[in-house]
Amino acid sequence: MNVLIVGLGLMGGAYAYKLKDKGYYVYGVDIDNKAIEYAKNNDFIDEGASDPALFIEKSDIIVLAFYPKAIIDFLKKYNNLFRKNHIITDICGVKSSFLSEAVECAKPATYLSHHPMAGREKNGIEYSKKCVFEGANFLIVPDGDVKDSAIDVITRMGLDLGFSKISIIDKEKHDNMIGFTSQLTHAIAVSLVNSDRNDDTKKYIGDSYRDLTRIALINENLWSELFVENKEFLLNHIEHFENELDILKTALKNSDKEKLKELFRSSTKIRKEMEK
Amino acid sequence: MNVLIVGLGLMGGAYAYKLKDKGYYVYGVDIDNKAIEYAKNNDFIDEGASDPALFIEKSDIIVLAFYPKAIIDFLKKYNNLFRKNHIITDICGVKSSFLSEAVECAKPATYLSHHPMAGREKNGIEYSKKCVFEGANFLIVPDGDVKDSAIDVITRMGLDLGFSKISIIDKEKHDNMIGFTSQLTHAIAVSLVNSDRNDDTKKYIGDSYRDLTRIALINENLWSELFVENKEFLLNHIEHFENELDILKTALKNSDKEKLKELFRSSTKIRKEMEK
Repeated sequence: MNVLIVGLGLMGGAYAYKLKDKGYYVYGVDIDNKAIEYAKNNDFIDEGASDPALFIEKSDIIVLAFYPKAIIDFLKKYNNLFRKNHIITDICGVKSSFLSEAVECAKPATYLSHHPMAGREKNGIEYSKKCVFEGANFLIVPDGDVKDSAIDVITRMGLDLGFSKISIIDKEKHDNMIGFTSQLTHAIAVSLVNSDRNDDTKKYIGDSYRDLTRIALINENLWSELFVENKEFLLNHIEHFENELDILKTALKNSDKEKLKELFRSSTKIRKEMEK
Repeated sequence: MNVLIVGLGLMGGAYAYKLKDKGYYVYGVDIDNKAIEYAKNNDFIDEGASDPALFIEKSDIIVLAFYPKAIIDFLKKYNNLFRKNHIITDICGVKSSFLSEAVECAKPATYLSHHPMAGREKNGIEYSKKCVFEGANFLIVPDGDVKDSAIDVITRMGLDLGFSKISIIDKEKHDNMIGFTSQLTHAIAVSLVNSDRNDDTKKYIGDSYRDLTRIALINENLWSELFVENKEFLLNHIEHFENELDILKTALKNSDKEKLKELFRSSTKIRKEMEK
C-alpha cells in the first residue's frame, strides 16, 4: 500500500513513521524542507518533496495532515490528478464545516474522513516518535456515498497505526461529541489557568492541577480555528457544564454536604463506567 | 526517631511504609484490624494496635492521617499523654478551620501541621505502595508559637518521605491556594463528568478528557468535608474561573479568533512557567 502524507508535523510525522514501519511505502510532503530532511534522516518516509503532485498518482491513500481551512484549496488544486481508486482522508478535529464540500471536490476520488484521538501538547515532527496511539480511539466519519472497501482500507490503516478502538460515526455526532470530550476540556483548562491570580502557584500544585492544565499548553492557530468551526456544539456544552458547576456552587453556598456527596457519587459512577 | 501513624489508610500507609524504610521506628494505629494486619504483613510498621494510648508516650512524632473533623476530638481525648517534646502533625487538605484550636488542644506538645500534595484516586492501605511522593510539593503550615527545631523535624520527615519541594506557608494562604489548585480542580472535574449527556461518550475520549476527569473519581465523605471547611476561598475561585470561561464564551460567540488566540497564548505562557 502506497500512502502519501501531506504535512509532516507532529501527527503527519507519527503517521509516516508508524506506517513505514508496518510496510507501507510512504511519500512525505511538507512546505518546510527541514521537516522533509528530518523525516528522511529518521527513516519516516521512503521519498519526500515539497510538491504533492510528484506523488499523488502513485498513492493509494492520501492523508491530509493539516488545518481544516486548507483542505478544500488542496482538493481543488490537485483535483486533476485524482483517480477513482484514490482514497483521500484527513485527521482534523472537526468535520461538519468542510466535509460535504470535500467529498464533492475530491471526486472522482473517494473522500473518507477520520479522526485519530491521540496526540501530544508539543508541535513538530521531532516529537512524532513519542506519539502513542495504542489504547486510543480512532473515529471514521463517512459522508456521502462511501464504499465498504474504502472503510476497510482506513480501518486497516487505523489498526496499523496502533489504535485499539475503531468506531464509525456521522459528522454531526462526531462534532457534537468532540465538542464535549475535546474542545470543552481545552476551554476549561485554558480558563482555569487564566483565572490564576498568584505568581507562586507552582509551589502549591499537586497531580490534579497538573493533569487538568496540561492541555492549557495549546496551539493557538489550530485551536482557535477548531473552536470557531464547531462553535454551536461547543457553546452548548459550555452551557451544560456551567449549569452543573452552578449546582455544585449552590450546594457549597448552603454547606449542603448531602448534595455535594450526591454530586461526587454521580461523577464517580460515570467516570468508573468509562474505564471498563 | 519514633513515629506514630494514626490512621492506616492510603496516605497513612504510605507514610508508614516509606518512613520505616528510612529507619524510623513506626507504630501504626487504626480502628480497622485488617489495615493493621496488612501493615504488619507488608513490613509497613514495627508495632500496631487499635489503641493509640499504647504508643503515644514512646513516640517523637505523631502523624494524624484522618479527616479534619476528628482531629480536635483526638487531641482532647489523649491530651493527658502528651509531653512537651512531642510533635503532633496532620496531613489534612484544609487548615484554617481547626488549626488554632488544635494548637491549643495539643499543649504541652507542639502542633505543627503539614500537607503532602500527592496521593491517588484509590482509597485504602493496599494502594499505599503506589503513592509516589518524588517531585511533589510538601507544605508546612506553622501556627502559634512553633520552634525551629520542630520545623526541622517535619522538614526532615518530608524529605525522608521523598518529597522534593518543601515550603512553609501560613494557614490562610495555604487554604486559599489549595482552594485553587486542588479543590477548584475537583469541582471542575466533577461538574464536567456530571454534564455528560451521552451514554457512549467513552468511544470519543482522548487523553485530554481522561486527564481532566481522573479526579472525578472522588471520595465523597472526605471531599464534601474539605469543600465545606474551605467554602469561602473555594467559592471565590469558582467565580474567578467562571468569569474567565465567560470571556472565552463571548469570544467564541463572536467568532473572535484573535481574542481566542490571546487567551490561548496567555494560558500557554502561564502553564509553561509552571514547568520550570
